[in-house]
Amino acid sequence: MPEKPMEVYLDNSATTRPCEQAVNAVVSAMREGYYNPSALYGRAVEAERELSRARKVIAQSVQAAEENVIFTSGGTESDNLAILGYLSARREKGTVLYSAAEHPAVKNACLEAAARCGHIAQVIPLDARGSLDLDAFTKLLGPDVLLVCVMQVCNETGAIMPLDRVVELRDRLAPNAAIHVDGVQGYLRVSFSMRALAVQSYAISAHKVHGPKGVGALIVRSGHKLHPQMVGGGQQNDLRSGTENTAGILGFAAAVESYPPQEIAQTQLANLKRQMTEALKTEIPSFRTLGPEPETADAAPHILYAAFPPVRAETMVHALESKGVLTGTGSACSSHKRRRSETLTAMGVPNALIESAVRISFSVYNTPEEIRFAAATIAEQYRLLARFTRR
Amino acid sequence: MPEKPMEVYLDNSATTRPCEQAVNAVVSAMREGYYNPSALYGRAVEAERELSRARKVIAQSVQAAEENVIFTSGGTESDNLAILGYLSARREKGTVLYSAAEHPAVKNACLEAAARCGHIAQVIPLDARGSLDLDAFTKLLGPDVLLVCVMQVCNETGAIMPLDRVVELRDRLAPNAAIHVDGVQGYLRVSFSMRALAVQSYAISAHKVHGPKGVGALIVRSGHKLHPQMVGGGQQNDLRSGTENTAGILGFAAAVESYPPQEIAQTQLANLKRQMTEALKTEIPSFRTLGPEPETADAAPHILYAAFPPVRAETMVHALESKGVLTGTGSACSSHKRRRSETLTAMGVPNALIESAVRISFSVYNTPEEIRFAAATIAEQYRLLARFTRR
Repeated sequence: MPEKPMEVYLDNSATTRPCEQAVNAVVSAMREGYYNPSALYGRAVEAERELSRARKVIAQSVQAAEENVIFTSGGTESDNLAILGYLSARREKGTVLYSAAEHPAVKNACLEAAARCGHIAQVIPLDARGSLDLDAFTKLLGPDVLLVCVMQVCNETGAIMPLDRVVELRDRLAPNAAIHVDGVQGYLRVSFSMRALAVQSYAISAHKVHGPKGVGALIVRSGHKLHPQMVGGGQQNDLRSGTENTAGILGFAAAVESYPPQEIAQTQLANLKRQMTEALKTEIPSFRTLGPEPETADAAPHILYAAFPPVRAETMVHALESKGVLTGTGSACSSHKRRRSETLTAMGVPNALIESAVRISFSVYNTPEEIRFAAATIAEQYRLLARFTRR
Repeated sequence: MPEKPMEVYLDNSATTRPCEQAVNAVVSAMREGYYNPSALYGRAVEAERELSRARKVIAQSVQAAEENVIFTSGGTESDNLAILGYLSARREKGTVLYSAAEHPAVKNACLEAAARCGHIAQVIPLDARGSLDLDAFTKLLGPDVLLVCVMQVCNETGAIMPLDRVVELRDRLAPNAAIHVDGVQGYLRVSFSMRALAVQSYAISAHKVHGPKGVGALIVRSGHKLHPQMVGGGQQNDLRSGTENTAGILGFAAAVESYPPQEIAQTQLANLKRQMTEALKTEIPSFRTLGPEPETADAAPHILYAAFPPVRAETMVHALESKGVLTGTGSACSSHKRRRSETLTAMGVPNALIESAVRISFSVYNTPEEIRFAAATIAEQYRLLARFTRR
């Protein structure tokens, strides 16, 4: 029998492998806690109590209150609810701003709201490192702005957005604007607190932090009014109808509870990224990083966006896959649509680099051994492929 | 050690216990098939292939094509997508009809669409057995009608709605109208075919047929245009964005695949219901059924809506619970809101009966032994409680 080949999963920004605690929570909710939390008998009340416990876990993870948590079917629904739910609850027309790095769930919800309610949607440009262009942002602000959408961490470049500056500028120049933060790529991996940061809503997804797919949450500041986007039985204070996905929600909470404490997680992730970056720098002369310089304060610890010109990204991803190393080419959200990255284009990155950009994304469950193997494999494949690529 | 007391779950219309095949499918998708189906490598392509297989299973179960299936987060989302998605894709204003028995997910989506797009929403009355009042329906039809919503089976009374007549009348009198069918309470338990019945959409939910919570589907006839209600990465042909809940979807398909063939399921369910009905008739003089007479063609085989005056429903449900028999009081969808049943009111049922209406709902996994125990328990509790209830 041949030995099972090693597989190193480094596409953790696309999705993560659910941790065993999450799997166990899902199984036990399906086998024993399957009662409808809206029914009358004790078993159902127990299911509702478990839901409430899960809600507390999620709330505490972002320093919010239990009643601030709306469970959804994932990041996309959370973003849609935050944006369409907020804008359809307001009567006046105005401007909606979103950064050029936003995930399509945010960008398209802004465009949808603009089309549906007659708002104007405008893009906030990026600087060369993939961060928000604060000068341009400042110029866009005014009393007509109703909503500002800036993500916590860019899913492609790993840029940590300057949310404290966004809040400060909004407070000063656009006092009528709410701020929605897409936290799908930042949650747990980069610190965030609803208490520390005066934003109105924060969207998160379980499957990016080793929880199940099909479940997420929107954290909504008390007093921030949303119009529900899914109506029906009136669950979750009438803000999101539908029988609660108890198994998914308990799996989500289990994943969050077993995630390492923030500082430890950040150190672990930063170490893996540093190990990979240094190995690649040594081995591959053309190695370049895109987005913020690794190890700077605005670079997320779990995403390394790298280019290995002249090797094209898809060629590299497939070559690595054949050796058991799984990586991505940017965002895995668009059903195989291979479009030029809007984020990199907005950053002014030259085409040659865009076409060779590979996203390597880490998890707290990756090990230094895995990184060693993956880095050696990347170097080896680079040497093979670069030789056959026309310069 | 005391013996573990028997528990008989007869609230299967609120939710069902996931079958082992569904649990196993979920676990294996979480442990081994967790890759993002939109990523590029083989593992992700495998995940997408599994999704496509699941889509075929669901499509075949209603005689539709694979491309007619949109996976959602459950029945509520499916109904919302069918109603709001369809009405927001049409430019003209018109009338939306929904039966007085509709689930709040349908009713409230119709009202939301009316408010949002300026349509008129009108209720189709019920007859005394809880079925559609076809004369009144006929009078409401006309060229201004854009959408007709009639459920397949009423979640309270178990009335099977005359969908073939609805289609026939629509074809003749309201040729501009689409028909949406909420199949959440009928799917698999009462036959349904997109090929046989010219409706435009059909909403289903996994957790009512022994699949996981948090997943459902909308079956949409080819050519019937919907505007997406959740926008983003463009998954599912741009009709429902968001990373697919692979584990939930595969669990759904596993539950559907292991559900007994239709005729066998219907016979099994009808036998359980008959056994219960006969036992209660013999033991409880005041026993009454609400909705269609059991054993008639328009009575679903899995729902028995029964009244035991003068005992109040909540008193009975809690008394039964204390003896291990779990039943419901109508619909378990409204987060413990105990409102008077709109369906029974629309049927003209007297208040005394409404207040004592208990819903007993069966599953193919219930056994005759369970029914014997439950019927004896109901009779015993009735005798105890009726004595203490003022007539």
